[in-house]
Amino acid sequence: MSAQIPKIVVVGSVALDTVTTPAGTREEMLGGSAVHFAVSASFQTRVGLVGIVGDDFAREHVTFLTSRGIDVRGLEIVKGAKTFRWTGSYVKDLNAAETHCTALNVFANFKPTLPPDYTRAPMLFLANIAPALQLHVIEQMPVSCYRICDTMNLWINQTRDELAEVFRRVQIIIMNDGEARLFTGEKSLITAGRKMLAFGVDYCVIKKGEHGAMVFGQDGFFAALPAYPVEQVVDPTGAGDTFAGGFAGYLSACGAHDHAAVRAALRRGIVMGSFNVADFSCDRLRTLTTAEIEQRLAEFNAMIA
Amino acid sequence: MSAQIPKIVVVGSVALDTVTTPAGTREEMLGGSAVHFAVSASFQTRVGLVGIVGDDFAREHVTFLTSRGIDVRGLEIVKGAKTFRWTGSYVKDLNAAETHCTALNVFANFKPTLPPDYTRAPMLFLANIAPALQLHVIEQMPVSCYRICDTMNLWINQTRDELAEVFRRVQIIIMNDGEARLFTGEKSLITAGRKMLAFGVDYCVIKKGEHGAMVFGQDGFFAALPAYPVEQVVDPTGAGDTFAGGFAGYLSACGAHDHAAVRAALRRGIVMGSFNVADFSCDRLRTLTTAEIEQRLAEFNAMIA
Repeated sequence: MSAQIPKIVVVGSVALDTVTTPAGTREEMLGGSAVHFAVSASFQTRVGLVGIVGDDFAREHVTFLTSRGIDVRGLEIVKGAKTFRWTGSYVKDLNAAETHCTALNVFANFKPTLPPDYTRAPMLFLANIAPALQLHVIEQMPVSCYRICDTMNLWINQTRDELAEVFRRVQIIIMNDGEARLFTGEKSLITAGRKMLAFGVDYCVIKKGEHGAMVFGQDGFFAALPAYPVEQVVDPTGAGDTFAGGFAGYLSACGAHDHAAVRAALRRGIVMGSFNVADFSCDRLRTLTTAEIEQRLAEFNAMIA
Repeated sequence: MSAQIPKIVVVGSVALDTVTTPAGTREEMLGGSAVHFAVSASFQTRVGLVGIVGDDFAREHVTFLTSRGIDVRGLEIVKGAKTFRWTGSYVKDLNAAETHCTALNVFANFKPTLPPDYTRAPMLFLANIAPALQLHVIEQMPVSCYRICDTMNLWINQTRDELAEVFRRVQIIIMNDGEARLFTGEKSLITAGRKMLAFGVDYCVIKKGEHGAMVFGQDGFFAALPAYPVEQVVDPTGAGDTFAGGFAGYLSACGAHDHAAVRAALRRGIVMGSFNVADFSCDRLRTLTTAEIEQRLAEFNAMIA
């Protein structure tokens, strides 16, 4: 029965995204933080997904997730309800989405309950959802579970205390540059990253989009890498979650989180993120092969050699 | 007599800068593209400086340059004339200077003539001056001289044809991200960098300020590195020239410009640039030691390991 225990559990949004970028507009595509994370991590590890959708969520989406080896027992499908929908655009700046409409629908009543097998997973990724829900999930896992969290500016502004409590109860915090600055009030990302370590985490990862990512660790550990440059960005939606999926997926697969593992995980995350932006939704990852990932990793390593 | 031949000649501005940054205002500090370049390169190689100043240029500035081993026989001092002055500020954005006043003074009549020993230097750096002057200097050097150039948006907008002629006659072009986009009309720096190779250069280097630098070479060579993160930027003036001084200084010192040399030069350039921004003018470099440079290089290498 141990084959049914995921190696990493992700809790987050499952959505239908309508996105406009310079490359065009696409309607009701598969999206959401948990989806982008799970698809990305599935190239390296066995993922258990926790989320909620309505019965308008196309069966083909579930089939696709399952085809990637993702365990969807934690995906709750609510009859007569509608899936969370997000509509946004990237017109002036591919680094910053403008939200046009957020219809929470079934997501408004999300109270994640983990299937029993999931609670035995050795690693947990708390994708961007309300800190109260992240705490609710943390409470369902044993303290031995290695916990990584993401967040967004909304929670920093609205539920800062609960978010701080999440930070105190995880081992790795992943944020983007704007969130790190907003949360700490520091302009310098170096100062901000170091400040985050005061929560007692092993590492704080700061994503900088097209400018790469940095990791701060206890005892002065520091790593920083550029992004893998993508000539034609089609849709950046989900790039951060795809990065996190590559990063945490690697840690999950190697079963370690020492400095060497974190350095390698950072490269995986950056490479996975670079694939995500090359097409709408997670479409590029639908055809992505392990050989392509390994080739890009080699190119990335040569680039920074 | 061969000891009197510089290993690299730099032609550019020598200025007195008045700069306002969040750290304060400083008046009439030593500055100019040729100065920042020369001081930086002097840590690795014998630099011959070509520039022009008035007799208001303090003797202590010349003494400082000489103390760094810089050959100042090419620095013309015009009696009864005033040195070039630049006044600018970085208030909203430490990445972009706002120019308040440019008093060209003696620089308006600059027509650089190289001392005979300088024309036997194996390498030339054309810092940011009018392309016509850059061409005038190129014509004084034998074709065997390895040439590297920098530029600025002013020349891209005003004297594009002459600038293109400079590009055709150098082996390495160094630009910043904004200049690369402006010159090529390409939004993607990858596309822009590759396009610049059409001038027949060996390499095009694109500086990205706090986000690092990239190098494009013929046959698909590509390298990209993050910046060395500086917690407290005091004054970014001259960072690009200091980067170029570290980059070209390394190539000059090792006497090569193959891929391995360019990769190592890129690291030197990034590290030297990171020191420049830590104080006003080139003040940080006044006390900088080789041991400090080597230590930061080691830290940088660990950061991207």
